[in-house]
Formats: sequence, structure tokens, C-alpha cells
Amino acid sequence: MGRWRRASQIVNRLRYDRLFGSPRDSIRGYPAIPLTDIGAQLRREREIVYGSLSGFRLVGGGGTWRTTIRSFGSLASKVARDPSFAKITAEDINYFRKILGVKNVIQDEDRLIASNTDWMRKYKGSSQLLLQPSSTEEVIINVGLLNNITSLDKVSGILVCEAGCILENLDSFLSDHGLMMPLDLGAKGSCQIGGNISTNAGGLRFVRYGSLRGSVLGIEAVLANGSILDLLGTLRKDNTGYDLKQLFIGIEGSLGIVTKVSIMTPARLPSTNLAFLACKDYKSCQKLLYEAKCRLGEILSAFEFLDSESMNMVITYLEGVRNPFPSSDYNFYVLIETTGSTESHDKEKLESFLMKSMEGGLISDGVVAQDMNQTSSFWRIREGISEALVRAGAVYKYDLSLPVEKIYEIVEEMRSRLGQSATVLGYGHLGDGNLHLNVSVPEYDDKVSAKIEPFVYEWTSKHRGSISAEHGLGQMKANEIHYSKPVEAVQLMASIKKLLDPNGIMNPYKVLPQSVLC
Amino acid sequence: MGRWRRASQIVNRLRYDRLFGSPRDSIRGYPAIPLTDIGAQLRREREIVYGSLSGFRLVGGGGTWRTTIRSFGSLASKVARDPSFAKITAEDINYFRKILGVKNVIQDEDRLIASNTDWMRKYKGSSQLLLQPSSTEEVIINVGLLNNITSLDKVSGILVCEAGCILENLDSFLSDHGLMMPLDLGAKGSCQIGGNISTNAGGLRFVRYGSLRGSVLGIEAVLANGSILDLLGTLRKDNTGYDLKQLFIGIEGSLGIVTKVSIMTPARLPSTNLAFLACKDYKSCQKLLYEAKCRLGEILSAFEFLDSESMNMVITYLEGVRNPFPSSDYNFYVLIETTGSTESHDKEKLESFLMKSMEGGLISDGVVAQDMNQTSSFWRIREGISEALVRAGAVYKYDLSLPVEKIYEIVEEMRSRLGQSATVLGYGHLGDGNLHLNVSVPEYDDKVSAKIEPFVYEWTSKHRGSISAEHGLGQMKANEIHYSKPVEAVQLMASIKKLLDPNGIMNPYKVLPQSVLC
Repeated sequence: MGRWRRASQIVNRLRYDRLFGSPRDSIRGYPAIPLTDIGAQLRREREIVYGSLSGFRLVGGGGTWRTTIRSFGSLASKVARDPSFAKITAEDINYFRKILGVKNVIQDEDRLIASNTDWMRKYKGSSQLLLQPSSTEEVIINVGLLNNITSLDKVSGILVCEAGCILENLDSFLSDHGLMMPLDLGAKGSCQIGGNISTNAGGLRFVRYGSLRGSVLGIEAVLANGSILDLLGTLRKDNTGYDLKQLFIGIEGSLGIVTKVSIMTPARLPSTNLAFLACKDYKSCQKLLYEAKCRLGEILSAFEFLDSESMNMVITYLEGVRNPFPSSDYNFYVLIETTGSTESHDKEKLESFLMKSMEGGLISDGVVAQDMNQTSSFWRIREGISEALVRAGAVYKYDLSLPVEKIYEIVEEMRSRLGQSATVLGYGHLGDGNLHLNVSVPEYDDKVSAKIEPFVYEWTSKHRGSISAEHGLGQMKANEIHYSKPVEAVQLMASIKKLLDPNGIMNPYKVLPQSVLC
Repeated sequence: MGRWRRASQIVNRLRYDRLFGSPRDSIRGYPAIPLTDIGAQLRREREIVYGSLSGFRLVGGGGTWRTTIRSFGSLASKVARDPSFAKITAEDINYFRKILGVKNVIQDEDRLIASNTDWMRKYKGSSQLLLQPSSTEEVIINVGLLNNITSLDKVSGILVCEAGCILENLDSFLSDHGLMMPLDLGAKGSCQIGGNISTNAGGLRFVRYGSLRGSVLGIEAVLANGSILDLLGTLRKDNTGYDLKQLFIGIEGSLGIVTKVSIMTPARLPSTNLAFLACKDYKSCQKLLYEAKCRLGEILSAFEFLDSESMNMVITYLEGVRNPFPSSDYNFYVLIETTGSTESHDKEKLESFLMKSMEGGLISDGVVAQDMNQTSSFWRIREGISEALVRAGAVYKYDLSLPVEKIYEIVEEMRSRLGQSATVLGYGHLGDGNLHLNVSVPEYDDKVSAKIEPFVYEWTSKHRGSISAEHGLGQMKANEIHYSKPVEAVQLMASIKKLLDPNGIMNPYKVLPQSVLC
């Protein structure tokens, strides 16, 4: 039953070493990868800012939207350009140059291609113009130059900044004041806070710090009619009227463009631990989550899982990544992170939790990271899955929320539907009930597609799940919204869209089906 | 410099006793009040459910809205009944009886008076009919019979229940499963979860578990056109379209009536400590908050403050309440609560934090509750202020959010404006930047009123505060919304109101000024 079970029968001192740093156990031949290298690598893989997923295209180009089906992707939907949209004229360009200056009105093909393409290089727009404003008063397209920090109240932890600030830069700035951002993403080195809010990004700290809907205290947004809506409150509590800022969180820029942000930031606690655990079945992962919530309580900061297919994918396709365990016959792996204010307390809690879970048979084996290198090695396994999948061939990607007990059922059903024709991976943020279901195939195939969709949406809908947990509907799933929302709700969303953006110029073709907007 | 400073110079063992339970220090002649008695008393004081603050009146009576100015209150605004509203006919009553049954169509004067009156007995409606539906399909007025728990997922902590469930009942139910509600209010014994959500209630656990906007996962609501909007998701993450449930949180029933609720509930952690501390000035309270966030970090669950005027008010007007300190010459008092999973760790953290704060001069004296009786005695001081004020005479009540460093300035300015004519109290949820500013006078007086309003709103507005932190605008402050929200925002709120409730029948005269709804 693994080493801890045996270890738990020997003296305390040894148990402690086993978990927290005896030299004989800490290495296991596991290669050290500095965190900074991983960050750089992730940035290379994700050149396109996360924030740009939400589009921010006010003025379309002259042609139709081209869609490119590459080796990775599920089907990209084709969209015909709305014929009521104006085409760009020389007069328009002169007008923008007058407002923004010549260098911030960009027509260069090479620079346009980055903003016209999503990070998976699956959807491609054909805008012929990129505008880069440097203040809210200018017309907004790319908010990358809006990157100033406005204020920080150190006592309350309230940060005010412009929408183009890079998430990692904000986190570093806060670090100097003993604070941190309440969200963390693999793309933190390039994504912008405005995009995070426009897409209601989830990420790794969600299980601890919750949704941006709770953390974001205020926003400033530019509406379709060009007016600036100042909702930039810096208060934790404000019940004066309707909470309009919520209308701009997670709507992918379709009602307005976020230009400034006020956000609640928690204290940066000094003690972090990371355990990488092996479990024999999904039921054990589920029970382990329940135990972690009860026993780690206030220090639990991440609970992630991956199956053996995900582990194999990472080991096969990513250089230098190895399974932390000598045996590879485990079916599931769990990463548990704790964050707290007192190292000795946290280690004691984690040790006690792990011992008890070993004794109860919930864990088959496990290692606790001894240093930053091991910590980043463990995270590299979990965060490298997307990258490994792209290297392996074509991939169908789904981001689902489901009741925790249903999460792995859909992975197994998909596996039995597809048989040998595909490799089905299940991994994700178990602590939040968020599954990343991925189907890897050598190349894109209509027969496989037909077996996956609409099955995956129907199954999710049947179990009252969400077909888009943390990624947003975008263009790909705008027409599938009815799988997760009733007709009345979609109609009301459309009414709100028409109210704020009667000409449909804010990030068109995304989020809502065109059929309800006519 | 108080006892702890001296205590900190002696051996560890004694320090520990001083803080956590040596018999010689634990009593101090402080009377024990069982928590249950306090609950019962609070319930007696607050007969009217908190939830009914949001009105829930679809069909008005035949007369005009009467307003009653009692000895406590700031000015109650008068409202003329909208002449376009229909009057109740015998036919209407027969219709409702057919749907709800005779016993749930209430015309009895005594029973109507409770629903026509708010808990401060300041505003009084004149509805001649009370409807009590027992399912969402019936027309909704009083949701008290909608009090079933639908489901609980113990692993994820997601609770689904009907809107009429009493907060304390839900908390007790969860307690059997190791979980708890993410909010706690003095009125928990009578307030309903639907009302909590409709008013976006804050309360004592806010500093730890944040806003209901993060905790509420789904709602079912009945709209003005009678249709039922099913947004009853049970998922932590769901980015499929606009998050419409936010439209029904904190809107005081003005866009729809919440009938069912899905809410995320955290683990009920076994260890709770409460310290009652004395500080010499407001600056020390502020620094203490910063230190508590850094050093208590993940276990901090409440940070409340009151000034010496509040303490005097409670001691003078509430029987059996005494100052925990032998000397009464302190200017400020702070309650710090910790909640965690491991008692020994929490006590060590709290002790270390208190020692350090004593040594740094932030605390002048302090006691840590030794048992449930002392815990409830300490809370009784903080929670009894409202009650004491009512007994003292007339009171002007304001619920403000302000930047933490500004919070006590307005109390002092108000004091110097009013001089000997009034007693000005400052207390509230310092951890959330939420001040309850109260002005006590022997009886209501126009001259005093004129010195308070609009000054208090103007001052708050000037410092970008909120004139309604956790209580909502209701009828009293609907016309004052512009002090905290710009014109464009109020116009957009009005557009949304007209979109969902074109005839203005949902809780009329509340939240928004009538002027923007014409």
C-alpha cells in the first residue's frame, strides 16, 4: 500500500522526513526545472494574450471572417460578416490617426495577424486595422498601452489599475506590499487583467479565493455608444442600486470594453506546500477532496487532478518531464497545494491529512515538493498537458463544469464511444468541479467529430452541467448556449445585448447565437 | 501599558494562561449570557423578517402609502401611490383563493400589519392583501412557506433550497454535515435566504467568505410578467453567457422575486477564538487590521470595531451588559474572531499576534473569551448597539462604506457639527470598510436633521464612499442614489428596470428614483 503506510508505522521523526525533506527521499531522480524557464516556455506557446480572446474589435475589416481548421481544434464555425457593418475608409484611418497618433493606428500585416488570431490559431479574423489607445478617452481596441497602476490601499488590499496591466506584473507589484492577485493562470506572463475580467477567468487559486465576481470591486467601461461608464468603486460593500459592473464580467467584451479595474487582493501568505499524490480510482480522488476540505480547511489553495492518460501524454511529448513515482501503474494523480501564514502549522496539518488519507487507503503513493524546483516540476506536469496534446496531433477540447461525482463518468463514456480511434484525457480543477475533457486523435476526422458532438453537450446538459466552465462561449460555442441555459434566459441576455449595443458592434458573433439577436 | 505587555516579559506558560484560560484571569466578574437567550432576544426585537425589507408586494392596496415618523428614524420619505396601479377587487381575491387556497389569501388586519411594516417600524405600506404561495408556480408575495431544502452535495458543499428558508435553520442543517452558511447576521433566527440575497446582506462573516455575489451559484426567480426564470445552476464555474443571476442579487425584489437558491457553503471549522481588545486611538485600530490580515491571514473571520460612545450606550441601556475591562477610559474597542481547523495552531497564531500588537503599542488591553458564555457576552456588546440606541431615544442611522483611513473622520466631523445636541456613535465592520454611523438624540428635531443631511451623503460622496454599504437603498435612500452612482449608471439601471418590469409593479418606489423611471 505505498511507502507512507509503512512509514506511518515507524517513528515520528522519520515520517516527518519522508514528507518534508529527508535527503534520501527528496530527489527520486526528478529533474529540476526553474519556474522562470517554464514561464518563458508557456509565454512562447501562448503568444496571443489571453485577454484578446474576448476580441475587442469595434471595426471589422473589409472581407468575410475566415476560419482555419488546423490539426488541433474541434470544428471552427464559419461566420458571414454582418452586411450592415461599415467598411473602413481612408477617412476613418485619418480620423483615428488624429485621435491616437500615427504610430498607434496599425495596418502592418505582421502586427495585425497576432490580433486577428486566437491563441490556438483556430479562429482568424480579417480586421485591417489595429488601434492602440493610451487613455480611456480615446477609442478602444487594444488596451495594451493602458497599463498603469492607479492606486493601492495597503490596509484594505484594494488595487486600482488600467485594463492592459499584465497579470504577472500586478502580482509582482503586490508582492512588494505583502499582497497577491486573487487569481493565477498559466498565461499570467502575457494575459491582461481587462481580459481576465472580460472572460471571468478561473484558474488555480479559484478554490481558495473564489470567482472574480466576488473579488472585482469596480470597473470603468466604454460602451458601444462611446460613452464611458464609471463604476470604478473601491469599496468592499456597496449596495447602492443594481451592481452594473457584473454586466461587464465574463461577457467577452460583448456589452462594453473594460478600461479600468478595481480589485480586492488578499494577503500574500509566506508558507506554500505542494503534494503530488497517486490514487487508485476516481472515487478515491473524490473522497480525498472531501477530506482535504475538512482537514486542510483554511489552508487548501489548489486541488487539481489528472488521469494516467494525461500523465502518459505529458511524459511522451514534453522533454524533461518525468513521473514522480517509480511505478507508473496508478490511474489518477492529484496535486494538493496549501498556502498559509505559519510554515510549521501548515506542514503539521498537511502531514496529518496525508497520513490519515494513506491509512484510509485514499492515497496509494505520494511526494511532497522539497523546494521550488520540485514545486515547478509538479506544476509542469499539470500545466503541460495542453502543450503535450498539441504536439501529439489533433485535439478536441472541452471545458465542462459537472457535479463532482459525475466528472469522470463522461470521460469513461467518451472512451468507450471512441474505442481505439482516440485517446481520451480527463484532468482539471477538481476542487471547483471543472473538468478539461480532451480527445486526442492523429488527425482531424469527421467520423470522430460526429461521435463527440453533440454527445458531449447533450450529456453535460442532461446532468445540469456547464458546457463552458471557465473559458467562455466565444465564437465556437455561441450557438450551443441552449445546452446550459433555458430559452427565457438566452432571450433576456439578447434583450440586454440589444439595450447596450443596438447595432451589434461590440465583439460580434460571440457569446450569443445570431438567431436571438435579429 | 496594560497587562499583556508585562505578561509578555514573563515565562511562556504564564503568557499562555493569560490569553487562553488561566482561571485567575478568565472571569473578571463578567456576566455569562447564553447564546440562545441572545438569539431569542434579538428575534423579539426584530419580529419582521429581514427578507421582507425588500417588499415583495406585487399588488398594492387601495390607499396611499402612509409613512410614520417614530421616535427613531431619520426622515421617512412620503410616496404617492402610482395612479396607474389597479385596485384590488372581490374578483381578484376569488382568483387568488382558487390558486392558493382560502387560508393562504390573508386579509386579517393583525397579520397584514407585520408585512406592511419594516423592522424599524418606520415605513408603513397599506396593502390589504397578503398572499402566501407554497410553490413557485403560484403567484408570489410572502415566500415564508417556500421553506424546503432541495439538495445538498456534501463533497462540493453546494446547497439548493427554497427562498423562504430561515438562515439559522439552514446553518443548523449544514452543521450536521460539517458545513456552514457563508453569511451570519444578528437577524439569522428570522431572516430568510431569499431576502438575504435580494438585499445582498453582508454581516459578520463577510471579511472571511466575501460577498454573496461570489457564493450564490444560482437562483430561480419569478419575473414581473409571471414567467419563471430558471438560473438554478449548482456549479462553481459557469461561463455560458451573461450571469443573469447577478441581476437578482441586491436589487430588493425590484426586478423579480427570488424563489429558489443555490449557494456554495464552506466547511464548518472546529476552532473559534474571540478577542476583545482596547485601543487608544483610531490609527491603532487601522494598524491592527493590517497586522491581523498579515499575521492571522487565513484564520481571520471577523474584525469589528466600536468607539467608547457605543460602549457607553450599550452599558447604559442594556441590562446585564458590562465593559470587559476594569478601566473604561479607552477610546476604541476591537473584536477579532479567528476560525480554523486546528485549535492549537489557531491559539498559537492569535497569541503571537496579540503579543506582538501589545509590544507595538497597538493594543492597550485585551481579553480572549474562555468559553461560549464569554464569547456571546462579547458579541452582545457589538450586536446590542442598535437595540441600545432605540432605547435611548431617536436615532439617525447611516450605513456607509468608506476607505478605511477615512472611516472615523466623518464620525468626528459629525460630532463637532452637532456639539452637545447629540451623541454620535461610530461602529461597524472595520475589516470590510463598513461604518455604521448613528446619531442619538432625545427626540427627533428638524434643526438636527438639517445639520446631518445632506452633509453625511455629501461627505461620503466626496470621498468616493457608498451611502448604502450593506443595507440597500430601499425607499429611504432611493432619491439619494446619485451620491454614490453617476448619472449614466442610474440611467442604465432604469433601462434595465423598464426592460424587466415595464409596468413598475415589482416593489415600487424602492432602489431607483421615480424621476428616472418616467
